[in-house]
Amino acid sequence: MQFSSTLLENAVNEFAKLPGIGKKTALRLVLHLLKMDAEKVVAFGETVIKMRQEIKFCQRCYNVSDADICSICSNSMRRPESICVVESIRDVIAIENTQQFNGTYHVLGGIISPLDGVGPDQLTIEALVNRVSKEKTEEVIFALNPTIQGDTTIYYIQKKLQSTGVRITTIARGIAFGGELEYADELTLGRSLQNRMPVESYVSHR
Amino acid sequence: MQFSSTLLENAVNEFAKLPGIGKKTALRLVLHLLKMDAEKVVAFGETVIKMRQEIKFCQRCYNVSDADICSICSNSMRRPESICVVESIRDVIAIENTQQFNGTYHVLGGIISPLDGVGPDQLTIEALVNRVSKEKTEEVIFALNPTIQGDTTIYYIQKKLQSTGVRITTIARGIAFGGELEYADELTLGRSLQNRMPVESYVSHR
Repeated sequence: MQFSSTLLENAVNEFAKLPGIGKKTALRLVLHLLKMDAEKVVAFGETVIKMRQEIKFCQRCYNVSDADICSICSNSMRRPESICVVESIRDVIAIENTQQFNGTYHVLGGIISPLDGVGPDQLTIEALVNRVSKEKTEEVIFALNPTIQGDTTIYYIQKKLQSTGVRITTIARGIAFGGELEYADELTLGRSLQNRMPVESYVSHR
Repeated sequence: MQFSSTLLENAVNEFAKLPGIGKKTALRLVLHLLKMDAEKVVAFGETVIKMRQEIKFCQRCYNVSDADICSICSNSMRRPESICVVESIRDVIAIENTQQFNGTYHVLGGIISPLDGVGPDQLTIEALVNRVSKEKTEEVIFALNPTIQGDTTIYYIQKKLQSTGVRITTIARGIAFGGELEYADELTLGRSLQNRMPVESYVSHR
């Protein structure tokens, strides 16, 4: 693409580095910024820089946080006895949006995946085991994606936690609400039959 | 969406203000920035701020520019006698990408559209008329979108330029390359018959 301004070209190139944004979309965004008030564009740039420079990771659960301990961990209304183990910050936001969980989290920072060079040491597994031994944890709930790597991670952590005697569960797998039986894969449908649940508990949760 | 960090939330909100970017995409972009090196994120923010604060508009053609006169107008290889009139900077970039034009541009900054409250005075029409009277202009080529507003703008400017005796043309309208006759609208197809061109000039341009 030909630009008559290096300033414009540099800004387009910076946006085009972001995932899912090509040159044309980047140009559209930059031309929009060009039309905006200068102070609003300064606010945009400074907010992004401030976010990257000042954001912290919670020392207890490794979620993103403005302080040393995140707003979920420091909230006295949340039950610290229940720890939901997730892969990333994105999963915390997804679960928080359901408003169905009032415990705390533990962000692993990834999942065990030898092919990608990610071993247990790169994740916050040791910190989780320490948390469970020291705090009065009653239950560890795994909310990991249903992949081989996810299952490997559950298996590995579960072995480490066995000696603590804590209750270990995983979120239910099955046919999604709104999903059609005939299009479900055999594994999901098969498992959802094996792990069938009493109708009274199903009805009470709807 | 629930965030445990105000810094993160502010950055997501800033991105979500951009056109075509919703909350989910904004979150994806911000989480990507969070994983990037801090100095790269600072470079991103500063490039955007610098672009908005330092970019100029060429005093001759109103294209975006790093200096008072843009790189196209100050390029001695380009013919200043030929002026291509376009609606916006975006159109300059589109025409430059064809590499078929070696004249200069004039960016109107919009088109006449009474319904949107845009009259001739808000556009750079007077500057164009001045340019044509003062410079040794040979031809003014209109490259505006084929809408009623575009045609109105052409008609208005053409009236203003009539006394100068300059040659006034507009880019060809017709069936696009790769277009199918049967799916073309009647107006385009009808006009392309009226404005038919000799085969030898068609063949020599392919």
